[in-house]
Amino acid sequence: MPQASQSNMTGLSSLREEIEGALETSLGRLSSETPQRLQDAMAYSLMAGGKRLRPALVLMACEACGGQRADALSAACAMEMVHTYSLIHDDLPAMDDDDLRRGVPTCHKKFDEATAILAGDALLTLAFEIIASDVQPTSVALDCCLDLARAAGPEGMVGGQMADLQAETAGVNSLEQLEAIHRRKTGRLIRASLTLGGRIAGASPAEITALSVYGNAVGLAFQIADDLLDVEGSVDKMGKAVQKDASHQKSTYPSWMGVEASRQRAEQLVDDACRAIAIFEERRLPLEELARFIIARDH
Amino acid sequence: MPQASQSNMTGLSSLREEIEGALETSLGRLSSETPQRLQDAMAYSLMAGGKRLRPALVLMACEACGGQRADALSAACAMEMVHTYSLIHDDLPAMDDDDLRRGVPTCHKKFDEATAILAGDALLTLAFEIIASDVQPTSVALDCCLDLARAAGPEGMVGGQMADLQAETAGVNSLEQLEAIHRRKTGRLIRASLTLGGRIAGASPAEITALSVYGNAVGLAFQIADDLLDVEGSVDKMGKAVQKDASHQKSTYPSWMGVEASRQRAEQLVDDACRAIAIFEERRLPLEELARFIIARDH
Repeated sequence: MPQASQSNMTGLSSLREEIEGALETSLGRLSSETPQRLQDAMAYSLMAGGKRLRPALVLMACEACGGQRADALSAACAMEMVHTYSLIHDDLPAMDDDDLRRGVPTCHKKFDEATAILAGDALLTLAFEIIASDVQPTSVALDCCLDLARAAGPEGMVGGQMADLQAETAGVNSLEQLEAIHRRKTGRLIRASLTLGGRIAGASPAEITALSVYGNAVGLAFQIADDLLDVEGSVDKMGKAVQKDASHQKSTYPSWMGVEASRQRAEQLVDDACRAIAIFEERRLPLEELARFIIARDH
Repeated sequence: MPQASQSNMTGLSSLREEIEGALETSLGRLSSETPQRLQDAMAYSLMAGGKRLRPALVLMACEACGGQRADALSAACAMEMVHTYSLIHDDLPAMDDDDLRRGVPTCHKKFDEATAILAGDALLTLAFEIIASDVQPTSVALDCCLDLARAAGPEGMVGGQMADLQAETAGVNSLEQLEAIHRRKTGRLIRASLTLGGRIAGASPAEITALSVYGNAVGLAFQIADDLLDVEGSVDKMGKAVQKDASHQKSTYPSWMGVEASRQRAEQLVDDACRAIAIFEERRLPLEELARFIIARDH
């Protein structure tokens, strides 16, 4: 679907500029109490590009629920900080041991391991600070902190990364187990990006549920698409090593069900996601386009 | 002052049991979404003993302001989780590279580096979850999240650890610089423990200020006492390597001003701390005893 992909690239691109401006601003708020080297490492990884998918989802969910994008910008930055922290820590030698990320040296390669660990810790903590200080009203800010903590913590993203590392040695015994890893490692944070945006717009419980269903489906579709790109992508477009999964004999969707069935499953999930957000009527369109882009992208 | 020290040991000891019970309960709330190995590593470090100084300060500050200790127990657990996460990460080979902590192997020695990094990440995130879900009312919970994030983040504890690592190679040029490291690395979290307890009790702004002044002074006194113990303590009582500072030519209070002047400075700080909490009248006593214990302890 090259058209959907193209229009979405445009939608994401226009948001990306706004998001990156806001990210720079939020780092600029740090006082001189933050050592310069730590600020540099945080900025290096946070401003290294990327799709800005999670913050875009925060903003789109907010607008889908009738809210103002500006009100959700801080929460959008917070989600990107948490995502960036997870990449910095996952790239460490003790974890996935990656030298390249988004086409440039990983944080611990550019700086050193200690600095990278601390930059990750700092971004995670700063994300909570930004939500707690910027989101209005108080009760919504607290709900956002709670959504984020549950999504990023031991039952969510951190637990998923632990399960993923264990699966590297113990193997994966079923597609259900693989999905359970992905749901925690990437799905929970994507879903939380949507619920945060909705909460800031004052969404109804039915709207939060619709955003959650969309988030679960899109999160999984995104992971399947990532697995497919690892099989078919190029180092050039991906900005990181490819065919790493196969060379590590890593369990992936293509390895479990083949390339074609994986693609069909991803398309099915995107259809499910789009059905869930029908209640937003016209305002659903950016989210719908984004979902279609996720499986059409080439990087 | 052996008497003050003795009575304080008793005060801390009785709280410790309550705190450790609450810590076990809060880990017990994790669902099976958390991989067992991650739960084990979190519990290993969190339940490895220690003085439980920070959670005790939360509870004592709450009671000093007329609050119920039970209302502050979750926040107390959260502060100990953040403290434990910082120890796990600081002990990593890329940081201070310590094999022993509280008399047992450090988390990365008992498990492995990846698990230790994730256990730290998980404890930090869980701390925010517990505060956001347990503290009442909503506005106080949000203020607690904000205090914690500011104390633990890049301008606080993480920034202090970065500055400390940099000082190891670049050296420390002044006592002011040394104090600035300590203020961020240990002082901010100790101060936040006090303000959280106060907030939960519904403290007035003047009471929060008194707790902050006490926290700043006690935090620094604690660090000076730690430096002195490194010079004079035994491996046996400390449960970790001693005279590490001197062998690393690390800048410490004794190295800047000598042992005797350091001791006097710590005593002065404790006096300052005790003066600040006079407004709590009779209810100040546990905090006063704890401050005296900090410089009288032998481990």
